[in-house]
Amino acid sequence: MSLATITAVERNEAGIAAVLGILKQRFGERFQTGETIRSQHAHTTSYIPTQAPDGVVWPESTEEVQEIVRICAENRVPVIAFGVGTSLEGHVNAPGGGISLDTSRMNRILEVNAGDLDCTVEPGVTREELNRYLRDTGLFFPIDPGANATLGGMTATRASGTNAVRYGTMRENVLSLTAVMADGRVVRTGKRAKKSSAGYDLTRLLIGSEGTLGIITGITLKLYGIPQAIAGGVCPFPSVEAACSAVIATIQMGIPVARIELANQLQMKAMIAYSKLDYPETPCLFVEFHGSEAGVAEQAAVFGEIVAEYGGGPFISATAAEERAKLWKARHDAYFASMSLKPGMTGLSTDVCVPISRLAECIAETEADISEHGLIAPIVGHVGDGNFHVLVLMEPGNPGDIEATEAFVARLNRRAIAFDGTCTGEHGIGQGKIAFIEEEMGAGVDFMRMIKQALDPLNIMNPGKILPGKV
Amino acid sequence: MSLATITAVERNEAGIAAVLGILKQRFGERFQTGETIRSQHAHTTSYIPTQAPDGVVWPESTEEVQEIVRICAENRVPVIAFGVGTSLEGHVNAPGGGISLDTSRMNRILEVNAGDLDCTVEPGVTREELNRYLRDTGLFFPIDPGANATLGGMTATRASGTNAVRYGTMRENVLSLTAVMADGRVVRTGKRAKKSSAGYDLTRLLIGSEGTLGIITGITLKLYGIPQAIAGGVCPFPSVEAACSAVIATIQMGIPVARIELANQLQMKAMIAYSKLDYPETPCLFVEFHGSEAGVAEQAAVFGEIVAEYGGGPFISATAAEERAKLWKARHDAYFASMSLKPGMTGLSTDVCVPISRLAECIAETEADISEHGLIAPIVGHVGDGNFHVLVLMEPGNPGDIEATEAFVARLNRRAIAFDGTCTGEHGIGQGKIAFIEEEMGAGVDFMRMIKQALDPLNIMNPGKILPGKV
Repeated sequence: MSLATITAVERNEAGIAAVLGILKQRFGERFQTGETIRSQHAHTTSYIPTQAPDGVVWPESTEEVQEIVRICAENRVPVIAFGVGTSLEGHVNAPGGGISLDTSRMNRILEVNAGDLDCTVEPGVTREELNRYLRDTGLFFPIDPGANATLGGMTATRASGTNAVRYGTMRENVLSLTAVMADGRVVRTGKRAKKSSAGYDLTRLLIGSEGTLGIITGITLKLYGIPQAIAGGVCPFPSVEAACSAVIATIQMGIPVARIELANQLQMKAMIAYSKLDYPETPCLFVEFHGSEAGVAEQAAVFGEIVAEYGGGPFISATAAEERAKLWKARHDAYFASMSLKPGMTGLSTDVCVPISRLAECIAETEADISEHGLIAPIVGHVGDGNFHVLVLMEPGNPGDIEATEAFVARLNRRAIAFDGTCTGEHGIGQGKIAFIEEEMGAGVDFMRMIKQALDPLNIMNPGKILPGKV
Repeated sequence: MSLATITAVERNEAGIAAVLGILKQRFGERFQTGETIRSQHAHTTSYIPTQAPDGVVWPESTEEVQEIVRICAENRVPVIAFGVGTSLEGHVNAPGGGISLDTSRMNRILEVNAGDLDCTVEPGVTREELNRYLRDTGLFFPIDPGANATLGGMTATRASGTNAVRYGTMRENVLSLTAVMADGRVVRTGKRAKKSSAGYDLTRLLIGSEGTLGIITGITLKLYGIPQAIAGGVCPFPSVEAACSAVIATIQMGIPVARIELANQLQMKAMIAYSKLDYPETPCLFVEFHGSEAGVAEQAAVFGEIVAEYGGGPFISATAAEERAKLWKARHDAYFASMSLKPGMTGLSTDVCVPISRLAECIAETEADISEHGLIAPIVGHVGDGNFHVLVLMEPGNPGDIEATEAFVARLNRRAIAFDGTCTGEHGIGQGKIAFIEEEMGAGVDFMRMIKQALDPLNIMNPGKILPGKV
């Protein structure tokens, strides 16, 4: 079954025409229908073909989002929330047309409660903007998916990234949400109390719902004190298995490592060339420790012992801030490094997540699969969580390459599911993984459909995402 | 509006009669209708009057739970999951009659994956049973609500307790669930991967749903390594405000305190008398630190500085295991200590949770309220989370006492909500807090109703709980 069939959504031409007219009149310059702008709002770093919306609107408040959703609901026209377009699985495509709701003008930081270690922001604030704003408070927001994504988008896709092994994902770091639901009503899903047993967890229901249940217009996030001391470095290993074994031991020992990232041999080759690193071309772990001076030193010492036990090392320490910055810039540039392995190619970035005891096996099988099928596909991962990414390089417009890559991704997803893992640890389902959610979740998908049907009976909230078939 | 009106559920006499016959035939001795047994399955430590089910059944597998749910669904008869009956808000009452599904025979520990720090258990396993089983593995499950509750019940009520400040609540510590839904189908809500972005978070939707959406038959839990070192002790403060300020500073400094519990002056008086403690009769913090030897020493030292800054101390250290055991036994016995303040009384235990910056104010107002209304009501709390409990003593059968207590609880709930907090941090809504969920959640309650209606259209899953009015 091709992607197009799975995520097909019927166009409601009359409704769309009516909405275009109403929004133009209501929002003036803040509503655009130019082709370039429309395409930009569906085109992301995804390999999935662009399906542009029919118009783009820039609301500035929850009330304006309500108005837009009500207009779309009255005319049965899809509304698709848009952050900065860094999602990877076609989340912002408009398979049935409709309106892209761009949150970039909702970018205010509404409050910071230093005493409670929380803040409330609008959805268009990016994680880097928030951390710049927080710098003088001694606090920071740790979740770092790599891209400078908006916090609205990160919430909607249940994002995580390098720091999740210590600080958790968006699931653990959102205290409550304000959202406009499909009927135009506003819900605040919780208070600022750190925990609550008051009814169903609407906060967690919206986190990861990819805009299919409601549009997030306010987010209360947990914050953390900037650690007194940070240390870290890079550690080479003779094999991916050895590196994974060291990761498992680190997690089992309860070392509160803040980041522990694996790059396989091909990924290291790419990063060494691209970022001009003086590291060995073997699988490496990139690690970071947060804590007090003494705590960080202790963590590093115990980690050093584990590394030695699994034949890793020598550990290349990066204690100075600029060394660390270089190291993590190299890690964050892994995508560009990989793309430079063979210029002129496009890339498909995919992710899976398995129990860490199965990680080494899963990566080894995946490397064998890549090799067997002659793909160019470096691997990098948030291995402390059992999560890894594969970036497959493809020749643009070469149907054989696309076919081979899609077949590889299918095998990878099924491999992860067979290892009691998930077809996506952090990218989300969107359109790209829609063919695998039933294999993973079984009857769970039916209950998701029942929830979707109950909360969005007209199917106007980002239709054609997450749930396969007719909703 | 009285509790009885809010949670009224119509009895389906014909359906109940049919189900009693079918279950008797199918389950024989594992189905009971004796009055004592029925009453026991609705009577908990709650002040809420007992509403007994019509029969009690003891399934031994997910398949048997499916059978029971299907029989109840076909006859439109309520089915109410039962653990050990330690809930406090009438969760296991049967306002419309029906079948109590006792999970005590589903008490197997199905697997422990030490390498992944997780385990899978049946719902009837209690937290103490699990920790006894795990002892030799070097692992433990930290969530400790005080009572030796079942893990099914703890999941269904989103329980937490003393360790939540460090390890999180059931929300953060359940990886995935198996549940029988209202239509009798089984769903497994996720895989064993530590994180996933695959669709709606059915795991979190079921956690805290109090048996109103499905019956939990399997739970995959996160485990932790038993800390290398544990230290702790008790620290007196001149006032509740001073103690709360020390707590806020501790949390803000990022000290990973494992437990930080407040007992106010009256609570200390009761505990000193009941547990024969040699502590001063002023507000005290009970604290515990987990980590390496050096880490624990460092945490304790920094905490000591904070305590001094807020006029607390001297810190009464309890490093030896038996001293700590005595200290925490006293803390866990706070309920019995309080009850012994005035023999012959019954108690109403209630809980709220507020942002910690508002905690001192909220407790101070609550103490003034207690004093103004002449109540006997000690306060104890998981203050690192902003969560505290009040146990109000009442003369049995004295309507004036009950009325005064209910009025106090109403003021307390509204106070917590006004402080941007919740009317229940960990006890749940059940029947007891059903009058307050709309004040707290606003339109959110409507969306909860829509979910309930979609997933349990016959309203057979623990009806009359969480959601006020007709569902």
